[in-house]
Amino acid sequence: MNIIQKPSKMLLAALLFGFFSTAAFADPLPSWNNGAAKQDILTFVKAVTDPNSKDFVPQAKRIATFDNDGCLWTEKPVYFQLLFSIDRIKALAAKHPEWKNTQPFKAVLEDDMETLLASGKKGLVQLVMASHAGTTTEEFSRIVKDWLANSKHPRFKRPYNELVFQPMLELLAYLRANGFKTYIVSGGGIEFMRPWAEQVYGIQPEQVIGSSIKTQFELRDGKPVLVRLPEINFIDDKEGKPVGINQHIGRRPILAFGNSDGDLQMLQWTAAGSGRRLMGLVHHTDAKREYAYDKKSHVGKLDKALDAANKNGWLVVDMQQDWNRIYPSSL
Amino acid sequence: MNIIQKPSKMLLAALLFGFFSTAAFADPLPSWNNGAAKQDILTFVKAVTDPNSKDFVPQAKRIATFDNDGCLWTEKPVYFQLLFSIDRIKALAAKHPEWKNTQPFKAVLEDDMETLLASGKKGLVQLVMASHAGTTTEEFSRIVKDWLANSKHPRFKRPYNELVFQPMLELLAYLRANGFKTYIVSGGGIEFMRPWAEQVYGIQPEQVIGSSIKTQFELRDGKPVLVRLPEINFIDDKEGKPVGINQHIGRRPILAFGNSDGDLQMLQWTAAGSGRRLMGLVHHTDAKREYAYDKKSHVGKLDKALDAANKNGWLVVDMQQDWNRIYPSSL
Repeated sequence: MNIIQKPSKMLLAALLFGFFSTAAFADPLPSWNNGAAKQDILTFVKAVTDPNSKDFVPQAKRIATFDNDGCLWTEKPVYFQLLFSIDRIKALAAKHPEWKNTQPFKAVLEDDMETLLASGKKGLVQLVMASHAGTTTEEFSRIVKDWLANSKHPRFKRPYNELVFQPMLELLAYLRANGFKTYIVSGGGIEFMRPWAEQVYGIQPEQVIGSSIKTQFELRDGKPVLVRLPEINFIDDKEGKPVGINQHIGRRPILAFGNSDGDLQMLQWTAAGSGRRLMGLVHHTDAKREYAYDKKSHVGKLDKALDAANKNGWLVVDMQQDWNRIYPSSL
Repeated sequence: MNIIQKPSKMLLAALLFGFFSTAAFADPLPSWNNGAAKQDILTFVKAVTDPNSKDFVPQAKRIATFDNDGCLWTEKPVYFQLLFSIDRIKALAAKHPEWKNTQPFKAVLEDDMETLLASGKKGLVQLVMASHAGTTTEEFSRIVKDWLANSKHPRFKRPYNELVFQPMLELLAYLRANGFKTYIVSGGGIEFMRPWAEQVYGIQPEQVIGSSIKTQFELRDGKPVLVRLPEINFIDDKEGKPVGINQHIGRRPILAFGNSDGDLQMLQWTAAGSGRRLMGLVHHTDAKREYAYDKKSHVGKLDKALDAANKNGWLVVDMQQDWNRIYPSSL
């Protein structure tokens, strides 16, 4: 045997089988403790990707959808997008002297969170319209990126997009390595997530689904722009999630993860398909490393969806028990 | 030299370079005559995919959008979806005796196309609502598939989804082989196209963008369904096309093809990005093999977009001159 020839045979073998067998030996979910949750995920992925399995799903149909707030990143003390809105209102206040005496803007400018939250849905919609509309789509993307680069979480003193869950990053990457398309399906703003989702989650803009305001095509000095209008286009929450999934994807997910009652209908919709599927909830049980909340929380309330998960045998991930690490960087 | 070892070296080389060099030698666009149009496409794709080119575009940003009616398939004598609506109204007529005396339904039932078209946008919207709403999304998908399986084009006596343009099928496949994501961006109904677009065009449901009616999530006997409502959700035409592209993709295409004034804004939006891009129009110039029409046509009117193409140097494909074949099967 000619030893010079040997490497090419080995290289050939490596090319054909190497990546897969290496991946099979390494733990794809190192931040997940060995236990039932991790095992459920590994078993499911093996079942739907093994061509010899009765549960095999062709690659094109491996659609996985994830809520964002509280599922892929932290959502406390309040949704980060609300903090963005507040900062944006403050930045725009000089041009709107009337806000000093008009709710809910007055409450924002006076850091009066109680009055702000008491303004209810109507007040929050007003806030979103004033803070998210009036720019072109390209300008808004820059504004979001600038805000993320220049603001920090009040408790963890880190940029918000560092407060993403390392175990979920691993899950997303593991699914993609197994031929899944990973989607965000969030009540949050689609244009608020897209500017950073690709870099942080590896999720491309076309795989981000969220709430939106209307946009309008205009020619400005002959140059086409899309202008963001103060008018709701779509609310991608609760009953809206299956609608958004159908509108954007046109296929039913075979895996869906959420963490609150806003995700119940997405999980029901996913569960109702034929063949093997995985429905999961992230349960925030770790006050020390992150936050602990469920049925009584105003932000990310997890009540009916938790009951449904327990009733239907969906996976409930116990953050404290199942995750040995919360964030990518130690805090 | 050991001759037994030789194949593995060759196989290795084939694995590394084979597919690409083979593809480079075969003509990826055999139904396109050699000429300026074909050359423009080949030159563009080479420029944006060659890592050493100043015009190189990373794979994730290679977004290509195509109109459907008149661009990927025939749209005469009228949009095929209108023919579907008419057949559907006739199928539902027994349950709606009032239609016998109500326009535009009366015109449909009497095959009075003149009165139907005279009912204008309002009449057509009524027609779409009555023929497209009232079912679940899954039922509607089956209805579309059944209709395609059981109806034929009045002139060509072929199923409608065989009246797709072979040169465009080759272009779609060629772009995908070069790392592009190919999208449909059509004024036609998103749920009307999705049931067959994957099989016919190789375009997955999540890459089909179109007009839509609203849907509503409901639990029926505990089973979640999406019900199609008689209410417009989005019109993906003219100024709506860039809006739809932004909503669904969140990136600007680098290549866009249309064939009518309904595509003008999509082409403008595509052209306005930075870096090299390709904007194209299919010009229907072949009355013998397909149809010939442009500025004066009610269906697929090509007027302002043709002027814009000529002014801006966009590619205008002359169906008669540039295509040596129109449909996949000879007719």
